[in-house]
Amino acid sequence: MTTLRIAGGRVLHPDLSVSEADVLVDQDSGEILDVGDVAEGDERLDAEESLVMPGLVNAHCHAAMTLLRGYADDKPLDAWLQEDIWPAEGELTEGDVRAGAELALVEMIRSGTTAFADMYFHVPEIAEAVEAAGVRARLGHGVVTVGKDEGEAYRDNDESIEIARELDGAAGGRIKTAYMPHSLTTVGEEYLREFVGKAREHDVPVHFHANETTDEVEPIVSERGERPLEYADDLGMVTEADFLAHGVHTDETEHELLAERGASVVHCPASNMKLASGMAPVQEMREAGVNVALGTDGAASNNDLDLFDELRDAAMLGKLAAADAAAVPAEAAVEMATAGGARALGFDSGRIEAGANADLAVVDFSAPHLTPVHDYVSHLAYAATGGDVRHTVCDGEVLMRDRELQTLDEAAIREHAESRAAAVAERAE
Amino acid sequence: MTTLRIAGGRVLHPDLSVSEADVLVDQDSGEILDVGDVAEGDERLDAEESLVMPGLVNAHCHAAMTLLRGYADDKPLDAWLQEDIWPAEGELTEGDVRAGAELALVEMIRSGTTAFADMYFHVPEIAEAVEAAGVRARLGHGVVTVGKDEGEAYRDNDESIEIARELDGAAGGRIKTAYMPHSLTTVGEEYLREFVGKAREHDVPVHFHANETTDEVEPIVSERGERPLEYADDLGMVTEADFLAHGVHTDETEHELLAERGASVVHCPASNMKLASGMAPVQEMREAGVNVALGTDGAASNNDLDLFDELRDAAMLGKLAAADAAAVPAEAAVEMATAGGARALGFDSGRIEAGANADLAVVDFSAPHLTPVHDYVSHLAYAATGGDVRHTVCDGEVLMRDRELQTLDEAAIREHAESRAAAVAERAE
Repeated sequence: MTTLRIAGGRVLHPDLSVSEADVLVDQDSGEILDVGDVAEGDERLDAEESLVMPGLVNAHCHAAMTLLRGYADDKPLDAWLQEDIWPAEGELTEGDVRAGAELALVEMIRSGTTAFADMYFHVPEIAEAVEAAGVRARLGHGVVTVGKDEGEAYRDNDESIEIARELDGAAGGRIKTAYMPHSLTTVGEEYLREFVGKAREHDVPVHFHANETTDEVEPIVSERGERPLEYADDLGMVTEADFLAHGVHTDETEHELLAERGASVVHCPASNMKLASGMAPVQEMREAGVNVALGTDGAASNNDLDLFDELRDAAMLGKLAAADAAAVPAEAAVEMATAGGARALGFDSGRIEAGANADLAVVDFSAPHLTPVHDYVSHLAYAATGGDVRHTVCDGEVLMRDRELQTLDEAAIREHAESRAAAVAERAE
Repeated sequence: MTTLRIAGGRVLHPDLSVSEADVLVDQDSGEILDVGDVAEGDERLDAEESLVMPGLVNAHCHAAMTLLRGYADDKPLDAWLQEDIWPAEGELTEGDVRAGAELALVEMIRSGTTAFADMYFHVPEIAEAVEAAGVRARLGHGVVTVGKDEGEAYRDNDESIEIARELDGAAGGRIKTAYMPHSLTTVGEEYLREFVGKAREHDVPVHFHANETTDEVEPIVSERGERPLEYADDLGMVTEADFLAHGVHTDETEHELLAERGASVVHCPASNMKLASGMAPVQEMREAGVNVALGTDGAASNNDLDLFDELRDAAMLGKLAAADAAAVPAEAAVEMATAGGARALGFDSGRIEAGANADLAVVDFSAPHLTPVHDYVSHLAYAATGGDVRHTVCDGEVLMRDRELQTLDEAAIREHAESRAAAVAERAE
């Protein structure tokens, strides 16, 4: 057994209390062995003036869209997708997706994210990048059937199921998968009925976009006489294993349904603001007992993958949505970004205690903007940024040490992504 | 004449176009001499892979409140002020205000802010800190008359006018001042009438909080039968020199009034979200022709002084407020944080061209989260953070070079602020 001791700092415990403590990690199993006054380790990671917290979980992303960061902004959703994003995505080759995913992984590790969920295409490329980077991920092929003939639609769904079957458990178990129909309005009912069933046969969860905009909610309500998540529940897509992105325009009935079924909602506050989608009722969801996680969505609607921004945005926007400055307190934001995300994605991470996955971020609290420290949790929500993360550890492996990436060649990845992105933009013109 | 050449990078021009260009600065006058293919300078600042932009302007702050960063969060405004903030502020000595202001200045310079407006007390301490730090500021003593007897109320107003007179033009002209009544509801009409007049006699502008919450707007509307800014206009507080903070709950009449008078609004999106105050109609204001600047407000309601957060928040929240993803585009956010802020504060800064003040931030674009670069302005609004600022220059002087502060002792200031803050918290208990 090789062990790693993260020493000399403070630890954020599962109850969000903070105390001086070390963390001992079994690097072979990738699990936390002990927290507190622990034994010596074979290797040591310094945590002086720092807080050891669970690695952040980005529960909804389209990682390869880093190539389109800043490619088009400040346009209404439909025009943005149809005039800019979809034409550009149509030009993305396997190599582009690989390059974009690698850039995303650099950014995530640098900002303390140790697990993410990703819906995209050319998924095997993303899986290889994840394997090399050392993080944890739940990956899936996004399915759209509108505008496709039956053959194409079937092939798209089949691919999503196939990929979910093939990649589940890859990278020594760090990669898990899901069947990922894009949304309730972009995938036909007949396909959802059939392929959600297949996902269940293969024991993979379902991840989809839901209730993101009113444009998406109203047709379902008027055509079916039920709320979108009631429709999804009829289709069997709202189980404890499933997680949906956005949930901006959800009502009390849907919150109760989600809580009862144990399904998770991934709140993407930055994306919801940037696309003017609305304010998710996060405080209401949490009060109803819904598990809420946080996600960046793709970099084109954010425009970065620093989950500390989402922590802050969730706490900030949650207050506005509830018209209550006491809503979505710092503790709630931190919980959503860690334990809530891990639960949504089905990873035994998001908490620092013996037996849990050793997925950790060590945050340097010596910066002026984190001075003074009246309250560590407040600083994580309202003042820290990804740039304050000093070390990132996933599955017991050190992925970043003192801001230096250990598994990825940052300069080469940046350069490669820059040239790939320029070529994509040129082809898409 | 001693000159500084900022060389090898790109420049953000006043029309927000970007091109490869150098900037030549006269360090004696503190002005920009030339932009483009400039002469050699006595000193050189490297801008390879970087963008030279106008220094950011934080047009509404209570700098010394850095000592209360994270001291109390997630409470409704009234309870937060009455139970936490005011009792703690009651304990702040001159030395505490100095320590908090110094910490704020460290944070501002590190995140590219070169000018700010500050409303607080023990203002001479703040002025000394500003003089030493090398930034530009418009300072004032905040006045509250509610709950005070006439003598106290007069003394408070007199102090605000006195300080405005004494400090105006200090630090070689880098410090300017304003008469700063706290708000239209916390300062009695009789005092406003008298002391706004005195401010005019001494040719100092007026800065105040206005229309921040509905609780502040409704009493004025019901008692006076006019909008708060109409009342302020009656009092002569809405001239071209004046700038008000927040303007969250403003209507079309008020926007027209502001535009006609040429007064500025300082939008504080993070504070407005954190205190659940509401969403300022920034797009409407700008369309009406109002000059809008950005501010962090105090660190206790933010909780940092990185104006790049406000750039992003302004663009994001402006879209939600307008229910339009095309509202408050990246260009608008950048303009508000630079030229808009400089205009609000009455400084000839906020633009990179010959003759303007040499107040500059050099932003490193080599970070993964700023890769690829399809659009520099988009990245400034949606992806850059204060941590990406490499050099900060104000009045021609280099205040930060390659992330190292040149005028302030960062470690000593941090340590001092930490111990001052702990003592304040103890006394306030």
